[in-house]
Amino acid sequence: MSQPQKIVIIGCGAGGGTAAQFARKTDRKAHITVFEIGKYSQYSKCGLPYVISGTIPTFNDLIEFPEEWFQKARIELFLGTIVEHVDTKKQIISAKKGNQHIERSYDRLILATGATPALPPIKGLEQQGKIADGIHVLRTIDDGKRIVAHLRKGKKATVIGAGLIGLELADALYSKGMNVTVVETLPSLLANTLDEDMASLVHEECAKHVRIFSNYRATHVGHTKESISKVFVTHVETGEQQEIDTDILVIATGTKPEASLAKQIGCSIGKTGGIIVNEKSETSIPHVYAVGDCTQYRDFVTGGSVCIGLGSVAVRQGIAAGINAAGGAYTLPKGVLLARTSDFFGIEIAAVGPVTSNMHDCSLVSGKFTGSSLPEYFPGGKPITIKLMVDDTTHRICAAQAVGANAAQRINTFACAILNTMTVDALRTLETAYAPPIAPTLDAVTLVCDVVFLKLARKKG
Amino acid sequence: MSQPQKIVIIGCGAGGGTAAQFARKTDRKAHITVFEIGKYSQYSKCGLPYVISGTIPTFNDLIEFPEEWFQKARIELFLGTIVEHVDTKKQIISAKKGNQHIERSYDRLILATGATPALPPIKGLEQQGKIADGIHVLRTIDDGKRIVAHLRKGKKATVIGAGLIGLELADALYSKGMNVTVVETLPSLLANTLDEDMASLVHEECAKHVRIFSNYRATHVGHTKESISKVFVTHVETGEQQEIDTDILVIATGTKPEASLAKQIGCSIGKTGGIIVNEKSETSIPHVYAVGDCTQYRDFVTGGSVCIGLGSVAVRQGIAAGINAAGGAYTLPKGVLLARTSDFFGIEIAAVGPVTSNMHDCSLVSGKFTGSSLPEYFPGGKPITIKLMVDDTTHRICAAQAVGANAAQRINTFACAILNTMTVDALRTLETAYAPPIAPTLDAVTLVCDVVFLKLARKKG
Repeated sequence: MSQPQKIVIIGCGAGGGTAAQFARKTDRKAHITVFEIGKYSQYSKCGLPYVISGTIPTFNDLIEFPEEWFQKARIELFLGTIVEHVDTKKQIISAKKGNQHIERSYDRLILATGATPALPPIKGLEQQGKIADGIHVLRTIDDGKRIVAHLRKGKKATVIGAGLIGLELADALYSKGMNVTVVETLPSLLANTLDEDMASLVHEECAKHVRIFSNYRATHVGHTKESISKVFVTHVETGEQQEIDTDILVIATGTKPEASLAKQIGCSIGKTGGIIVNEKSETSIPHVYAVGDCTQYRDFVTGGSVCIGLGSVAVRQGIAAGINAAGGAYTLPKGVLLARTSDFFGIEIAAVGPVTSNMHDCSLVSGKFTGSSLPEYFPGGKPITIKLMVDDTTHRICAAQAVGANAAQRINTFACAILNTMTVDALRTLETAYAPPIAPTLDAVTLVCDVVFLKLARKKG
Repeated sequence: MSQPQKIVIIGCGAGGGTAAQFARKTDRKAHITVFEIGKYSQYSKCGLPYVISGTIPTFNDLIEFPEEWFQKARIELFLGTIVEHVDTKKQIISAKKGNQHIERSYDRLILATGATPALPPIKGLEQQGKIADGIHVLRTIDDGKRIVAHLRKGKKATVIGAGLIGLELADALYSKGMNVTVVETLPSLLANTLDEDMASLVHEECAKHVRIFSNYRATHVGHTKESISKVFVTHVETGEQQEIDTDILVIATGTKPEASLAKQIGCSIGKTGGIIVNEKSETSIPHVYAVGDCTQYRDFVTGGSVCIGLGSVAVRQGIAAGINAAGGAYTLPKGVLLARTSDFFGIEIAAVGPVTSNMHDCSLVSGKFTGSSLPEYFPGGKPITIKLMVDDTTHRICAAQAVGANAAQRINTFACAILNTMTVDALRTLETAYAPPIAPTLDAVTLVCDVVFLKLARKKG
C-alpha cells in the first residue's frame, strides 16, 4: 500500500482554508497540514465592515470554519505560526509557533499567503516606526477590533480610498453615527469596479450621507499628543489645499500580494507582484500551487495579467488547488471574469469583466439602459441601470456593470454570457423569467443588449 | 418610389401589440393596422390577479399602450372588431366593428389571436347555455371586473386548477380576506412549472393560507337560485367524495390556442392545437406570421412541440414577427427555454426548461441544493432551493427550478447556460458575484452544479 499523500498549505484564509477542505473531500487519507500566521482559522475578511457597522454582532461570527472543524476533518492546523523556510528539494517546511519548531514534509504545497495593505505615501502615517495612533487599515479581525475600540474617541472619521472596501467602511462608520469623509485621488469612486458614468450614480447617493473629496490626494496627517487630528488633502489638478478634522483615519487604498515566500522558493512572480498561476492553480514550480490574493492570473476578456483580490476567486482557486493537489482534477476557466458586487447606503452595485479603462486594446461599443425592476404598472419597482460593453468586431460581450435592484444576480447572467463568449446578438434573444411582481417581460438585461445591438447596427448601416 | 409596406396584425395582446411596435420601429413608413376583438388596447393579462388583490389600483392601470400611443405611432387600431375573412390570394382582410365593415389589404399578416380558457368537463358549469352565475375564468379585463364585482357576495372562494394563474388567483382572493380552496386533479401543484419535490415546498407554504384539494377532480357544482353554492370533488384514486361550500368559483385549468382563423387560411396547425411557427415567427403560409399564445414552437431542450403560454415568449415572438414583417431580420433561438416565474404567499418560484415528466427521452441526472441567499454569518439570509437537471451523457444543462430568494434572476443564469448548451462541468466553474450582504462566495447556483457534477462523477467512477 502506498503512503498517504502529504499536503501542506500556507495560509488559512478563504483560499487556503477552502483548499484544505477540498483536498480532504478529494482524498480521505491524505495528511493535510495548514500553517496560518494569524490567530484565527478561516474567516470572512469581506465581512469585517459589517461587524464594525454592527450588522454582524461579533468578529467571532465571521469565523466560517473554527479550529474544531479542521480537527474533525483531520486537518492539522497551526495558528499563530510563521513558516520560516521551504526546502523545495527535500520538500520540507520549517515553521515556528512561539518557541516551538515544526517541520513537515510535503508532496504538494499550496501557497495561500494573501495580501497586505498598500499604504500610500502620506507623511505622518508612522510615528516612532509604527503606524500612528488613530490610523488604521482593515485586513484582519485584529484590525477591525482596533477600529471598533477607537470609535469611542470621537465622531469624525476619514476614509482614504473609495474602492469597494473604502465605501463599505464609509457606510459602516456612517451607520455608527460618525461624520464620515472619503478621500479619493482619482476623479471617480470605485475606479476598479465601475466606469465613471456608472460610478457617478453611486457618488450621488453616497454624497447624501458622507462628504466626498474625489480628485484629492492626502498629503500628510496632523496629530495631537494622543491621536490623529487632521488629514491634509490637495486637489490633484488645481493644487488647492484643504484640511479635514478627523478623530480616526482608515486607509483603504488597496493591497499588494504577499509573495515573499514564493519568491524565495523561486516561483515566477508576475508584473503585478502576484505569484503566476495557471488554470489548475499551479505555480511555475512543480507540485507547488498558489491561490487567492497572493496570485496573478489571466483576465478572461483581455488576456492580460490581473492580481486576484476577490474572495469569490480565492475560493474557486482554493477548490482547484485542493482537488488537484489531492490527485483529483479541476480546471478553472481560462481567466477570471472579475464578477464583483457590493452594497453601500442602500445601493446594490455589481459588475463583471474589466472596467473600460482596462480594455485599451479592444474596440468597444457600449450602451446603457435605465429602467425599473418591475413592469411600469406594478407598484414597488426599483431603478436598475445596466451598462454593457461589446467588442465592435466580434460582437462578443466583454463586460457589464449594474447599479440598482438585484444588480448582482443580473450580473451573473452576463458572467455566464462572457464565459460562453456569447455575442450581444445572441444574448438579446435570451428568454428571461417574467411575472409582474418579479420582473418585466423585457428585463433590463435584455434591453441593454438591444441598446448596444442597435448602436452596432447603425455603425454598420 | 415604391409603395409603403402594408402590415396587418390580428390581435392586440402582448404579442400583437409588440409586433406592431417593432414593425413601426423597423419601417417608419409602413401602413400598420391592428384589429382587436376586445375593448382594450395592449394590456398585461398577467397583471389581472394583482388588480383583484388590490396591489394594482385599477384594471386600466394594466393598459401598457393606450389607444393614443398607437395613434402617435401612426398605427391604425380597431378595437371591438371581429376579423371575418382573410383572402390570402388577394391579401385582403375583411372585418366588422358594429355595423361598420372594414377592409384592408396587406403585404404581411401577423396572427396574434391568443388563447381561450379551456373549461374542464364539470357538470353544472353552464345554465341556459351560458356560464352560470358565480363561475368565472380570468383571461381578460372584463373577466377580472366580473370577479371583483362578485366578491361582495360571500367569503368563500374556490379555484379549480393549481397552475401559476390558479395559485396567483388563490393568493389574490386570500389577500382580499376570502376563505380560499384550491382544487387540483393532479397530485402536485404547478405540475407544468415545477417537479413534484420542488412543488411540495410551495404546497407547504400555500397550505398555511388556503385549503388545498390536490388529487381531487371537480365533478359538478351546485347552485342556489341566485348563484353557485357548492363544488363537488372526488378523490382521483380512492373515489372519496367531498363537497366544498363556495360563493365564487374561478376556473384556471389552462387555455387552448385560438387558431380558428389560421385554420381557415390554411396555416399548418400542430398537435398542441397551436399555429406552427419557426424561429422567424413565420407560419407555413408565405407572408403570414403568428405570435404568442396561439402558436406552437419548438422546445429548445427536447426538440418537441410546445404551445406558447408565456407573456415573455409572446413579446419576443412579437419582436421577431414585427421586425421580420417590416423587412428587418430577427431570429429567435431554435426553441423556447420556457423561463417562468411567479410569487404566491411570499414565495418566489422560477424555472427554465421542461419539467422532468416532459423529458421522457432524456437520460437525466438531477440534484438539489438548499442554502441561504447570504453567507451563513450574515443576518437576513433567505432560503433558496435549486434543482438542476443534466443530461447523463452530454452533461448538458437541461432544466433548473428554484424556490426562494431571487429565484427568477438566479434562473436567468441557468437560462443563459441552456441557451449556450453549456455543460454542468463548465457552469460549476462560473464566477458569481460575491459580497456578504448580497450573496455567498459559492452561490446556490454553483453549489447545485456541484451536487449534480459529483453524482455524475460517482456514476462514472
